[in-house]
Amino acid sequence: MDPSDFRRHGHALVDWIADYLTGSERYPVLARVAPGDVRRALPDAAPERGESFDAVFADFERVIVPALTHWNHPGFFGYFAITASAPGVLAEFLSAALNQQAMLWRTSPAATELEEVSLAWLRRMLGLPDSFEGVIYDTASISSLHALAAAREAALPGVRDHGLARATNGDRVRVYCSEHAHSSIDKAAILLGLGHQAVRHIPADASFQMRADLLRDAIVEDQAAGIRILAVVATIGTTSTTSVDPVAEIAQICRSYRIWLHVDAAYAGVAAALPEQRSRFAGWEEADSIVVNPHKWLFTPFDLSAFYCRRMDMVRQAFSLTPDYLQTAEGKHGVHNLMDTGIQLGRRFRALKLWMVLRDLGVEGVRAAIAEHIRLAKLFAQWVDRDDDFERVAPAPFSVVCFRVRPRLFVGSVEELDELNARVLDAVNATGDVFLSHTRLNQRFVLRLAIGHFRTTERHIRRAFELLKQYTAQLASS
Amino acid sequence: MDPSDFRRHGHALVDWIADYLTGSERYPVLARVAPGDVRRALPDAAPERGESFDAVFADFERVIVPALTHWNHPGFFGYFAITASAPGVLAEFLSAALNQQAMLWRTSPAATELEEVSLAWLRRMLGLPDSFEGVIYDTASISSLHALAAAREAALPGVRDHGLARATNGDRVRVYCSEHAHSSIDKAAILLGLGHQAVRHIPADASFQMRADLLRDAIVEDQAAGIRILAVVATIGTTSTTSVDPVAEIAQICRSYRIWLHVDAAYAGVAAALPEQRSRFAGWEEADSIVVNPHKWLFTPFDLSAFYCRRMDMVRQAFSLTPDYLQTAEGKHGVHNLMDTGIQLGRRFRALKLWMVLRDLGVEGVRAAIAEHIRLAKLFAQWVDRDDDFERVAPAPFSVVCFRVRPRLFVGSVEELDELNARVLDAVNATGDVFLSHTRLNQRFVLRLAIGHFRTTERHIRRAFELLKQYTAQLASS
Repeated sequence: MDPSDFRRHGHALVDWIADYLTGSERYPVLARVAPGDVRRALPDAAPERGESFDAVFADFERVIVPALTHWNHPGFFGYFAITASAPGVLAEFLSAALNQQAMLWRTSPAATELEEVSLAWLRRMLGLPDSFEGVIYDTASISSLHALAAAREAALPGVRDHGLARATNGDRVRVYCSEHAHSSIDKAAILLGLGHQAVRHIPADASFQMRADLLRDAIVEDQAAGIRILAVVATIGTTSTTSVDPVAEIAQICRSYRIWLHVDAAYAGVAAALPEQRSRFAGWEEADSIVVNPHKWLFTPFDLSAFYCRRMDMVRQAFSLTPDYLQTAEGKHGVHNLMDTGIQLGRRFRALKLWMVLRDLGVEGVRAAIAEHIRLAKLFAQWVDRDDDFERVAPAPFSVVCFRVRPRLFVGSVEELDELNARVLDAVNATGDVFLSHTRLNQRFVLRLAIGHFRTTERHIRRAFELLKQYTAQLASS
Repeated sequence: MDPSDFRRHGHALVDWIADYLTGSERYPVLARVAPGDVRRALPDAAPERGESFDAVFADFERVIVPALTHWNHPGFFGYFAITASAPGVLAEFLSAALNQQAMLWRTSPAATELEEVSLAWLRRMLGLPDSFEGVIYDTASISSLHALAAAREAALPGVRDHGLARATNGDRVRVYCSEHAHSSIDKAAILLGLGHQAVRHIPADASFQMRADLLRDAIVEDQAAGIRILAVVATIGTTSTTSVDPVAEIAQICRSYRIWLHVDAAYAGVAAALPEQRSRFAGWEEADSIVVNPHKWLFTPFDLSAFYCRRMDMVRQAFSLTPDYLQTAEGKHGVHNLMDTGIQLGRRFRALKLWMVLRDLGVEGVRAAIAEHIRLAKLFAQWVDRDDDFERVAPAPFSVVCFRVRPRLFVGSVEELDELNARVLDAVNATGDVFLSHTRLNQRFVLRLAIGHFRTTERHIRRAFELLKQYTAQLASS
């Protein structure tokens, strides 16, 4: 593609994307294709000769666009809803062109230092002390993996060199989290060689919050059994219900037993920017490590996970390893090289989008957007609470509402009620106007409405509620 | 940022990027800032109120641009030189706007299936059999980590549940690679809990290729000592010299001892697209897993690492774990969900850029670009070989030349010659016209010229050689 072609196609793309960002409601939120449709619509092999971008873009519109699930649609209420905001999208465009690879300070002073600057901005906005050093990873899975790797390094001297078998001397190891913790904790334990059984899921109370008393009991029991305790993971904003573990109490337990505390605030962390929400975060400042994902609720295109750690020396101790070809003069003079802080040698210039989003919105803009999402969730929760055909099944502290359809006149079994909920969900999602996802709580099928898109308004949640009402009436009577 | 602002700033960015892609030679390749310059030029906290994009972009040009090391500059010859090609940059722009998160097929059928399609295209272009299933990760570090995790799973039944200590029953474990293997192999062994000592670095021959006879000896010795052998990592295109391990011979050893073979072809793999290069890849089709990085030598913006595996079931067995809120009907009907193939739950829409680059260039275009880089490297190697003030210190099978300055009339010690090489390197890099990096081979400081930028021409390597000549003459006489 020659320069004049790039200019022409680039300008066309800007217009296409501008239309998309404002007009994503033209599309059904959930893709309507069947498995294999994309694969079958494309040839089996790359073309022998290069093609024009016009031909490629025509296929993009013909084959790819219909197979998108529109995460960047204000009616997207599944999982955790997210936003690729305009300044974030522009930043990614720049970032792709600059193609920085920030493994060493010298390979991108800009990316290395802007990461430090933008993470300091975020940290201050969230009210975390400066003793937390930050690093950007791709996903919360990788952030929590590093938290547990650092905890392992701190708890088991020699593990880096000699491996788990020798460092534990055959003793069993343990990581605690609530039964509502994210699956990434289990996956990290598996990857780190601790084994899935090393993860002890502490039961939650009726509000889906980890029971600190049971955590303490478990620690006492495991210590007595000679198990080596590596870490406790507390969650602020669990994935199913956004429940908040009693972090202050858990931090106190971790302090008294000298256990690494990792706080998973991947989704909800940004809410700490709101003074009125700060109390839900009590105790997180005592954690050893914290993960907050700007790609979740800070309007930053996927992927960007912020990992904060008060003992980043443990992360470096676990991973730092500099081959000859990467030794530089700056490295000897106290400059941080990002490759020393983690498993990935290569690092994209992710900080650019975080920096541009924070400047575009300002702290006030972030607070306003988050507060509005919380307001909308409370409003939706009220509609659910006031409607005799619905029931709410969990507190909604942030922007997610968990609820069930339960028509007044419904006479079936609990299994039939689950089935009705699943059918209502499918019917609502099939309209294409909105997309909700589900979970299971206390063995029951539960609907989730998650608000996180910058352009989601009352109109969108009202539409979701209307559709839920409509299909509940229709399907319950059939 | 409102829609009309996005359009305005987007068009301005297209022009800026078009100028950048064609005019990156305006900038010094290596950033000239001092540590802390970027940090000091920016405020300590995010602005309270949102700012205009014009203000943000002015700071981008004032603070960020001077602190970039221009990886996307045709005079970038450091590490492995890479290119963010125009179609790749446009694809990333689209990808950011669409903000797909392809953890499940249903959350992005497009990203899930285009990953399959584009990896099949790449696989066929490289001549690998269809028995290799592919998945896209961010970096080769993560790809090789998954290779070794799968090898661990295959070799140590029960490790997923019970952890390393119990699965090994206290036996030591082993991974082999050459002394020239990438540091990501060591890091992966550390992360996986095997311990750094589990990695046995097999000596290389005079051409920096792993000695297969010594590998066999090591296996026999370790087996006799009761060590559990997990994997052998062979490299096609090592990081220092791009040497090629004898993969066919190694594959035969792995077959006879039933050991997982992982081939790290992160840099050189794309060269398999050239029929005349195919012989260097003999035996890689017998590997259990292979990593090839399109973000290295396939003109795709960073990051995109292609991982191919003939036993992807082992990767899934090691990691698959589906919480209630991610269970979908499609998952029960044989559809692949990318979250099952790895540690990261979230996945960017990386396939889009690979697909667009392959279509834009076509197989012919890829071959022509790679062949030209190899031709340029051979040319540069000839200049070195024919010049009495230089010496070449390694074969140059691909696009990297390792050499030293050794002026005819130089009379100092080997340490002084090292020092001279380091000073010449610094002086050449300080010109800003080119950037070369270094390594150490046989304890000696070695210069590396790596060609990988799409717009690098003979003029650029000639300039590099002229500068090397000039500063060698100047510094050797001083």
